[in-house]
Amino acid sequence: MTTSVHIAEPLDLRAIRGQIDAALGDFMRDKARTAGTLLLPEEVTRALHAVLFAGGKRIRPLLCVLGWLAAGGSAELPPFVIKAAASLEMFHAAVLIHDDIVDNSDTRRDRPTVHRALAKLYNDRPDPSRFGADAAIILGDLALVWSAELLNTAELSAIQLAAARTVVDTMRSDVMYGQYLDLLATGSPSNDIDRALQIIRHKTVAYTFDSPLQLGAAIADAGAQVHDALTCYARPLGEAFQFQDDLLGVYGDPARTGKSNVDDLRDGKHTVLVAIALEHADAEQSACLRTLLGDPELDDRGAAVCRDIVAATAKETVHRMIRARWAEANRVLDKAPFPTAVVQAMRHIADDAIARTK
Amino acid sequence: MTTSVHIAEPLDLRAIRGQIDAALGDFMRDKARTAGTLLLPEEVTRALHAVLFAGGKRIRPLLCVLGWLAAGGSAELPPFVIKAAASLEMFHAAVLIHDDIVDNSDTRRDRPTVHRALAKLYNDRPDPSRFGADAAIILGDLALVWSAELLNTAELSAIQLAAARTVVDTMRSDVMYGQYLDLLATGSPSNDIDRALQIIRHKTVAYTFDSPLQLGAAIADAGAQVHDALTCYARPLGEAFQFQDDLLGVYGDPARTGKSNVDDLRDGKHTVLVAIALEHADAEQSACLRTLLGDPELDDRGAAVCRDIVAATAKETVHRMIRARWAEANRVLDKAPFPTAVVQAMRHIADDAIARTK
Repeated sequence: MTTSVHIAEPLDLRAIRGQIDAALGDFMRDKARTAGTLLLPEEVTRALHAVLFAGGKRIRPLLCVLGWLAAGGSAELPPFVIKAAASLEMFHAAVLIHDDIVDNSDTRRDRPTVHRALAKLYNDRPDPSRFGADAAIILGDLALVWSAELLNTAELSAIQLAAARTVVDTMRSDVMYGQYLDLLATGSPSNDIDRALQIIRHKTVAYTFDSPLQLGAAIADAGAQVHDALTCYARPLGEAFQFQDDLLGVYGDPARTGKSNVDDLRDGKHTVLVAIALEHADAEQSACLRTLLGDPELDDRGAAVCRDIVAATAKETVHRMIRARWAEANRVLDKAPFPTAVVQAMRHIADDAIARTK
Repeated sequence: MTTSVHIAEPLDLRAIRGQIDAALGDFMRDKARTAGTLLLPEEVTRALHAVLFAGGKRIRPLLCVLGWLAAGGSAELPPFVIKAAASLEMFHAAVLIHDDIVDNSDTRRDRPTVHRALAKLYNDRPDPSRFGADAAIILGDLALVWSAELLNTAELSAIQLAAARTVVDTMRSDVMYGQYLDLLATGSPSNDIDRALQIIRHKTVAYTFDSPLQLGAAIADAGAQVHDALTCYARPLGEAFQFQDDLLGVYGDPARTGKSNVDDLRDGKHTVLVAIALEHADAEQSACLRTLLGDPELDDRGAAVCRDIVAATAKETVHRMIRARWAEANRVLDKAPFPTAVVQAMRHIADDAIARTK
């Protein structure tokens, strides 16, 4: 599709989020009904519903819709676009459920994580914590297979579905490798910035930004020019988003972010922020960071010491890197062959990505 | 497809297995090459390759091919049938990897399970066992998404792929619910035979037998008569297979089965075998079983006591149930509208399922 389509400005992102929520709600209602008929345990769909509707930003489905619109797809969003977009959120629920087990997280978005909630539900078991993790592995798998089902039943045409699957297959490998790299690097942070960037490339740039945009564009049968422009927008924005996420993981207000600002330090997450800090730190600061980061016993006082050192050595650099990438994403949009309303919405998302406090 | 196709008799199941292995090998070689190019950790594809080529029976891919042939598909197996069949084995690898974490198993087919192998590879980590489990969650996820990719890239026609996806979507939900039910029931075995049968319906009948057969048949555009006959064959056979599996889990020779014959008892697996034992046991036997089953400290002596009680109360009944289901599957085949060579192979599989010692 290359014909320019007029879109009422500005795009109503809130309304689009509402349509995505409705598609997810419908799918889950069907699943809950089937489970009821088959006498299957109802906590499965209930727990997954809770994850899906815990107040996520719906960034991936939104980007999918924007990819569709960027490629000239109709602003009267067809149900298949919404369902394909919703399948990304279902997939992400699977990633989060498993990620929270791996990270041993107690809460996400201020609520107990799935494995903790299931541990509580089955607190009469000999080892509830273990039981919760085991049940959450299976529940995450179910969310993963349901994400495929949601895409498969979106009623895309055969050509659209073939194009979508290529993007989705790549995306899924990317995030899993990203998760694996992240796991490997966690606990032994170093000054290796490239290694931190490799993780971001898989987990954030490809998975969170580029693939969702490409998915929408592929469904709209976009040409190479649109695909390329989307990637050029996604790359700096994905990095900026992750850098901001890393800052929030250390300096965020838990009351706003809904997650701890000590966990990343205690786990020894290998981020660009930490890599730069270790690169710029003097001998004393470096020794101190290497002792504290990844220490399972790290307390609030130790976290405060880390924060001070990172602030002195890396925080401003990372802020500058975020602004540079934000500017680059905006420069890409200046020349991108997208409808004006889409460019506007993409600028808005870029602003949000770097200004967000949660 | 309803035209009868002549197939050279008997079918060479070993050659079919060879074709499936080749498809899996090719896919993994591509993935290993890509990982090499992207500087991704090579243990990921190596560990998954080891699972795939640890000597599995390839029962699901074989049944998929038989479903194709039963519906009149060409005996010159097209590559898309082999790849679709291979995707079932890839999916199964994902299920096994996660199942071994949930069951806390040390070995499978005489080799260390993936989480144990990764724990050993990273034994310099602060908590290698935990690290191995975390890494194996991600690796299982990767196998799961790669199974979808293998099906998506099998070069099925759009119509075949749509038919295949419906079967596969159902199958995936079935096994995950089956795993969840199994987890719930484990540790608290009871005389509730229906509950044990519900687990089997999802995990074995639907997942291992019916869906693979239906997948092959769907790709061959089978009519309702073929689909129905396959289900009528799958149901008793799946139950017989699982009953035999339960017997092997308690009475098998670990040197043959490659797995412990104490774990099921120690975990308190809720099987039909155990449900019948508890139903038929006298007060003393029942009290003894309820104390021992699911006791994490159960040793060889305790296991021997369990075996004696189960032998006295349930073993013969279960053997009888297996023979009855074997006979029923054979009766279905007497009337099934399948080519003779397919019926022969299916009888062979039924014989194997109940006579197997591993």
